[in-house]
Amino acid sequence: MTGGDAPANGDRPIAAPQRGRPHSEKAHSAILAAACELLLQRGLAAVSMDAVAARAGVSKATIYRWWPTKETLALDALCDEWASSAWARDTGSLRGDLLGLLRPWARLASARPYGRVIATLVAEARTDPAFAALYDSRFAEPWRDQARAAFGRAIERGDIPADVKIEVALDLLYGAIYYRLLHGHAPVSDRFVSDVVDAAMNGVAPGSAGR
Amino acid sequence: MTGGDAPANGDRPIAAPQRGRPHSEKAHSAILAAACELLLQRGLAAVSMDAVAARAGVSKATIYRWWPTKETLALDALCDEWASSAWARDTGSLRGDLLGLLRPWARLASARPYGRVIATLVAEARTDPAFAALYDSRFAEPWRDQARAAFGRAIERGDIPADVKIEVALDLLYGAIYYRLLHGHAPVSDRFVSDVVDAAMNGVAPGSAGR
Repeated sequence: MTGGDAPANGDRPIAAPQRGRPHSEKAHSAILAAACELLLQRGLAAVSMDAVAARAGVSKATIYRWWPTKETLALDALCDEWASSAWARDTGSLRGDLLGLLRPWARLASARPYGRVIATLVAEARTDPAFAALYDSRFAEPWRDQARAAFGRAIERGDIPADVKIEVALDLLYGAIYYRLLHGHAPVSDRFVSDVVDAAMNGVAPGSAGR
Repeated sequence: MTGGDAPANGDRPIAAPQRGRPHSEKAHSAILAAACELLLQRGLAAVSMDAVAARAGVSKATIYRWWPTKETLALDALCDEWASSAWARDTGSLRGDLLGLLRPWARLASARPYGRVIATLVAEARTDPAFAALYDSRFAEPWRDQARAAFGRAIERGDIPADVKIEVALDLLYGAIYYRLLHGHAPVSDRFVSDVVDAAMNGVAPGSAGR
């Protein structure tokens, strides 16, 4: 997270739940890694807590200590896996910041069948409001925050007007990438990401992508 | 469909499967209507062929004559319901065409919990390639084609350059709307749709939204 640029939802928890004891760290990581592998191989519907327990070498009771449902486990597995992806740095330009954020994001998303995992989690979020709030605060919003902070820095530098419709820009950026990822009609290439960044920037702040 | 502007996939079937006899039309419509109601009320996971049969007043065998799975039935129910939505007309301007297409689409999508239905179908498409092809040819692509045709007319009129990145524009337009619809972080209002249309147009063809 970017500290001073923290957005309105900065007080929501985004980390995984607190673990009981330090020596259980290893089991915790093993469960997340096993869940992520199984999710990518089979999708959420085909993954059982039994299968995750067997692969991680722990008991089901150990899993249930931290995760009440396989959906919450899947969400944490996704967040954990993606936490290693580069977060936005301050490159000194909005275009540089957005490319630095979204290219690694899109590369990671495309490298394995994450589109399938995210599609299932989104579908679950639309039927379970409590899960939707978790998905939003732990996964969707922290990534939006990063792009939001980049627009904030560009406004502070005077590179774009202060009244730029930032939320519309975020929906164009993530919307276009999620759309290809979830619908699968075309690849999310580096070229596509830079086309989307240029179009979204010029769309909300004419000429800004060329600066 | 728009004839001369027909895209590459114009030869794919987009109509519902042929029905056997005219007098079964009524059962066919009753099944689609029952499926749509149940989907909106309960979501795909909770809808069974038994429940659809009971509500439509037909036998399950009658349903299976036309639809092999509840996913294919759900897809046709969605297509049938949305077929009544206004299709793009030639308004003489790209902005008018896009607003005329996307505002009714977004209003219909937001009026009831279609986000949930579409999220489940998209998730199913990401696990079943055959269903993905059906979803694409019957639902996703025909709507993209309408917007694609509007860009084609604008190029023919000389309103925008011929090398405009139309596919990027389509991904920005539908991407942003689907994103709000599926993730549910903000409403898909008329205002949002016109912001997205303006930004997407200016993004791929600078200044075009003001013309």
